[in-house]
Amino acid sequence: MPGGDMKTPLLADSDSDAPGPLPRLPGNPVVGIIGSGDYSRSLAIRLVASGFGVVVGSRNPQRIASGLFPEGVQLRSQREAVDGADRVVFAALYPEHYHTLAGLRDGLAGKVLVDVSNATRLNSGEPSHAERLAELFPQSRVVKGFNVISAWALQAGAHDGSRQVLICSDCCDSKAAVVQLVRRLGFSPVDLGGLAASRAIEEAPLHLFPPWGGPVLVTLLLFLFFYGYNFLRRVLLPYLDHGENNFYQLPLQTVNQTLPAVALVTLALVYLPGLVAAVLQLGRGTKYERFPGWLDRWLCRRKQLGLLSFLCAGAHAVYSMCLTLRRAAGYTLLNAAYRQVKAGVENSWVEQQVWRSDLYLSCGILGLGVLTLLAITSLPSVGNALNWREFTFVQSGLGYAALTLSIMHTLFFGWDFAFSSLAYPYFLPPVFLLALILPCIVLVGRVLLALPCLTFRLAKIRRGWESSRHRRCPRDQEPIEEAPPQNFGDV
Amino acid sequence: MPGGDMKTPLLADSDSDAPGPLPRLPGNPVVGIIGSGDYSRSLAIRLVASGFGVVVGSRNPQRIASGLFPEGVQLRSQREAVDGADRVVFAALYPEHYHTLAGLRDGLAGKVLVDVSNATRLNSGEPSHAERLAELFPQSRVVKGFNVISAWALQAGAHDGSRQVLICSDCCDSKAAVVQLVRRLGFSPVDLGGLAASRAIEEAPLHLFPPWGGPVLVTLLLFLFFYGYNFLRRVLLPYLDHGENNFYQLPLQTVNQTLPAVALVTLALVYLPGLVAAVLQLGRGTKYERFPGWLDRWLCRRKQLGLLSFLCAGAHAVYSMCLTLRRAAGYTLLNAAYRQVKAGVENSWVEQQVWRSDLYLSCGILGLGVLTLLAITSLPSVGNALNWREFTFVQSGLGYAALTLSIMHTLFFGWDFAFSSLAYPYFLPPVFLLALILPCIVLVGRVLLALPCLTFRLAKIRRGWESSRHRRCPRDQEPIEEAPPQNFGDV
Amino acid sequence: MPGGDMKTPLLADSDSDAPGPLPRLPGNPVVGIIGSGDYSRSLAIRLVASGFGVVVGSRNPQRIASGLFPEGVQLRSQREAVDGADRVVFAALYPEHYHTLAGLRDGLAGKVLVDVSNATRLNSGEPSHAERLAELFPQSRVVKGFNVISAWALQAGAHDGSRQVLICSDCCDSKAAVVQLVRRLGFSPVDLGGLAASRAIEEAPLHLFPPWGGPVLVTLLLFLFFYGYNFLRRVLLPYLDHGENNFYQLPLQTVNQTLPAVALVTLALVYLPGLVAAVLQLGRGTKYERFPGWLDRWLCRRKQLGLLSFLCAGAHAVYSMCLTLRRAAGYTLLNAAYRQVKAGVENSWVEQQVWRSDLYLSCGILGLGVLTLLAITSLPSVGNALNWREFTFVQSGLGYAALTLSIMHTLFFGWDFAFSSLAYPYFLPPVFLLALILPCIVLVGRVLLALPCLTFRLAKIRRGWESSRHRRCPRDQEPIEEAPPQNFGDV
Repeated sequence: MPGGDMKTPLLADSDSDAPGPLPRLPGNPVVGIIGSGDYSRSLAIRLVASGFGVVVGSRNPQRIASGLFPEGVQLRSQREAVDGADRVVFAALYPEHYHTLAGLRDGLAGKVLVDVSNATRLNSGEPSHAERLAELFPQSRVVKGFNVISAWALQAGAHDGSRQVLICSDCCDSKAAVVQLVRRLGFSPVDLGGLAASRAIEEAPLHLFPPWGGPVLVTLLLFLFFYGYNFLRRVLLPYLDHGENNFYQLPLQTVNQTLPAVALVTLALVYLPGLVAAVLQLGRGTKYERFPGWLDRWLCRRKQLGLLSFLCAGAHAVYSMCLTLRRAAGYTLLNAAYRQVKAGVENSWVEQQVWRSDLYLSCGILGLGVLTLLAITSLPSVGNALNWREFTFVQSGLGYAALTLSIMHTLFFGWDFAFSSLAYPYFLPPVFLLALILPCIVLVGRVLLALPCLTFRLAKIRRGWESSRHRRCPRDQEPIEEAPPQNFGDV
Repeated sequence: MPGGDMKTPLLADSDSDAPGPLPRLPGNPVVGIIGSGDYSRSLAIRLVASGFGVVVGSRNPQRIASGLFPEGVQLRSQREAVDGADRVVFAALYPEHYHTLAGLRDGLAGKVLVDVSNATRLNSGEPSHAERLAELFPQSRVVKGFNVISAWALQAGAHDGSRQVLICSDCCDSKAAVVQLVRRLGFSPVDLGGLAASRAIEEAPLHLFPPWGGPVLVTLLLFLFFYGYNFLRRVLLPYLDHGENNFYQLPLQTVNQTLPAVALVTLALVYLPGLVAAVLQLGRGTKYERFPGWLDRWLCRRKQLGLLSFLCAGAHAVYSMCLTLRRAAGYTLLNAAYRQVKAGVENSWVEQQVWRSDLYLSCGILGLGVLTLLAITSLPSVGNALNWREFTFVQSGLGYAALTLSIMHTLFFGWDFAFSSLAYPYFLPPVFLLALILPCIVLVGRVLLALPCLTFRLAKIRRGWESSRHRRCPRDQEPIEEAPPQNFGDV
Repeated sequence: MPGGDMKTPLLADSDSDAPGPLPRLPGNPVVGIIGSGDYSRSLAIRLVASGFGVVVGSRNPQRIASGLFPEGVQLRSQREAVDGADRVVFAALYPEHYHTLAGLRDGLAGKVLVDVSNATRLNSGEPSHAERLAELFPQSRVVKGFNVISAWALQAGAHDGSRQVLICSDCCDSKAAVVQLVRRLGFSPVDLGGLAASRAIEEAPLHLFPPWGGPVLVTLLLFLFFYGYNFLRRVLLPYLDHGENNFYQLPLQTVNQTLPAVALVTLALVYLPGLVAAVLQLGRGTKYERFPGWLDRWLCRRKQLGLLSFLCAGAHAVYSMCLTLRRAAGYTLLNAAYRQVKAGVENSWVEQQVWRSDLYLSCGILGLGVLTLLAITSLPSVGNALNWREFTFVQSGLGYAALTLSIMHTLFFGWDFAFSSLAYPYFLPPVFLLALILPCIVLVGRVLLALPCLTFRLAKIRRGWESSRHRRCPRDQEPIEEAPPQNFGDV
């Protein structure tokens, strides 16, 4: 029956954004928390706000400042907290103090003990805190969870189930109980198996964008290479050679000559591993052999490489559109006007140059537009709304379209310059030639793989067919489940 | 009690991105999979990683390559797999081989049989695979599910419940069991009713952006029309008439004159159906008659039309900002400087032209900014965070603001040109006049509908009031639930 | 056992986007709806489509237009509807008519009564509709819910669990039953506690971007201030002083001088409250005293202030890139070319001005790029995928990088102008000087707080240490749960 005292509403009013407490309702499970520090407080606030009863156990309950814990939370000794909890007890204290709970072993027997600690160092190789807790309390069911939620998110976060809580445990019933609790608190539980996963879960909050490390490094190295090459070819060597002062180009113009090269090569690196994998499968005649480790990792980093390519391409576009804002551009134009008047040239129109500039600008804008569509579908909420066929159409189809347009943009930009000797000062070819090497290899490779004989053979291999050297015994018609037809870009 | 052997953690370590297997824990349900192909393998990997026991049934279990299925998966004959499964059995084989399972009918009786196949053709009119399976196995409960998840997503996808699995079945208990299984595997189940929905579910992965077909076609036709009109009026006819060579304009300038017209007309097409619907409701005097089919479809495509309009407007902005980068612009400026010097004109400032250009640029930037806000709220994650009142404010309020700013941008751009005879070469009006027709009709219509008498009557009709010709008998005060007050843009 | 008649599939076919009805399956719970208006109809459509049985109670069931409610919905009197419902009954009628249901009190005893009404006014101080309903029906369990879902979203919305339904009730069992129902209908339930929360839930759909009110006002005031200052200093006073006509600058140039100032000050306002809070904690020597209300609210509005700053910065970038498109820019260049030719100057290159312009453009583009990364991580779907460490790295680390780059952009733009007397017409300093005041204070403050002594002390305080004046009794080693190490930007 409805009852209880429900004084303070939960939604934020104009004076305070913190939810007020609610006392326990008869029938509501009571959750215990051992420890009375900051995390214990945030956890208590969230539990009480979701309608749970909470009893906090501390070694010195009298010393806890009043008003620290929300109304409705009972502050007791550790023993009383463990006994007062119905089933779930949170161990919200430093892992190095776990052994101090030894006296509660019998009280915790049969209860679910949730370990909320984080690891202190990545890859230390030691057993995880949860595993140590499981050894200390063999009669309890230890569940690892909640460590990925910060105290701030517990107190003030949304109740909309969008933030994930990683959970693992060896005991399925306890795990199910904690999963239910997670849902009631407004989070989204993710089950990661047995307690062997606890080390990885404890290290999860220490990661800093783990899949981005390699791609960012590659992009940075490419940038340094092309920037250094441009600096050498256009600034330093002309200066050493005939005292031409081009150092003013360093902040903007040299960067703007570097970014497109980096974007182009990185975009090629997105589609190259797919080709390498296809060639490997064709060569081996089977798809059941695992790829080399480096190829596997490369295949998993394609999304990050693509987004970095889009970032560089977008920055290149913005830098280019700012070229005419520069004083240097103004001075150049004024000097050119002076020379034209002094030379008495009435019309300085060169039709070829006009076509060249309009064509490469047009290809560049179209290529950037297609890359933008690709980047938008990489957003989590948009990507999840696409089915597999739509996703492949965008990532593979539009991706190759973007690569082609970018190559055309670069070729139009180059026009016939590569055939003039002016393009090779100090025997250094222009940057756009260097940048075109890898993308052209990728495009040609993709076209070759589209030849009917190769396409058909590769499709067969991907459906499970194996060349004779891999079949160990004659197979009769083993019905193979029809895997969704795969595109080259999606190995 | 905790037990079992949990060797390999589930989260990706640095050497491998594929989750390792976990053996079955006593108490974990055992799921059966008939078929040993690619999909069966991916399904087994995911099930084992989420703590289920898996027994795979194949006609020739000895011939399955070792190492293909993860550790912990039992490879048995089909009969043994069906018997070994606790309740759920996946039929992971080609639909044309379903009849080969006839001998397992008694073993499958009372069990839940999940059909994971996709349709091969859209709109073929045949019964779905799930319905055929239900006919073959009348004693089993057939559930349609998992076909929208690709093998790749099963193996390597996130466990975060963001990817949807469409499910349908005639038996609610079986459906509930599969829904629970879907959640444990880390997906998000969507219940679509009875087995009659299975045809649609089977066709779901074959769709390629179904709601976008019509709008993209409309936008493309508008583009071709305006591009052809511009080509005729500015390039071809002047060439045929007096040999003026404007062909260099085709890649960039003509496109830049076409895109804004397409964007403007498409934006008007977003708000026109709302006005047509309002007029229909006013004319009929009731809101309970259904709209014509074409109007219903048009109303449902408004979001896609709006996003295409934003795409064209953004491309127009980028093309415009690149206008000064073109060699043609440089030559034009240099030639103009030459002429000014030769004419001895010290100050070529024309105040009117300065105001015109600043005003239309300003309106254009503001209009694009408002369209960007509209596009951002169309993202799934942002749109879902808005309540109905906020969503209407943005889509309707900001939407009409964007339309108004775009019309002002075009009018300022046109300035007084439409009144000069130069604007009508070959009796063809300038493009901006053509593009303005529909948006002005929409804006005027919206203003008319804001007149108090019409607004009041329409609000009454939308609250459920009906004009006398629709009431069939005198109604006493029927309490009508107060529907949220609706804005014109949201029919 | 499977049975029932499942005629119409649920997914949209090409002719109709509305789902058809499904008759009730034996075993499916029956839900009752009192009221037969628009909302009742939408609710019935959704319930039937999710496989529930529905009985609608109306005072005059015969007068309901045929075809209004979907097939399978039973239209009965109110008494029959209440009796026919298994457990849950929706009260889909106007709150002012609740008293007319008094006669159903005994029929509703023990059943779950769901109140779906919205409040009509914000902050009216009256008891909520749900509380009045609970008083009228003390034997029923009143649950507040569904009012945030509009009729349109019920009929045509996605079944993907992304739209939230706020729920509250004093009775936990009833709340759990409604939560289950919400999930089956394809929504995402959010539990907000007891019935005291119903007032806030009823007002929820009336809010219009509540957290944005203050930040938008602040940004608007800053814009008006800087625009007025620029107008005074550059347009009005020169006009009154010596008749210089700069009014053409008002639409675009003055706006473009205002936007960067607004963006810079707003960005400083994002990081200032964190510094104030840190100083307060250092001064007080404890973190357990609550912040003043204004500081709390300011800290909660930082995300909105940051997004507004990004909006202004992006608009400033677009306005700047359009500067060369203006006729005024063309005329200025032509006049300058004329003067240069007349003066016989062959090379007007000024190296300092070239460096200045390239440097400030470069810093501006980099700053905008970093702000874009910040804005992208503010999207709900992206932000939820980051763990706490990554989120702090982006928001705090990249945030201060953006602030630094923006300050450098402004300083390079200013160059040495501030030291010239030309910069102070009418004793008014240039805008960029005014705009730099607050950001420089923030940056200097942040650098000061990074001094080892202050950092160490603040970290201690944030771990729970208190200075002696706050400790009321000697504490022994109270184990404190290790809270995640917090960055200054994340109080």
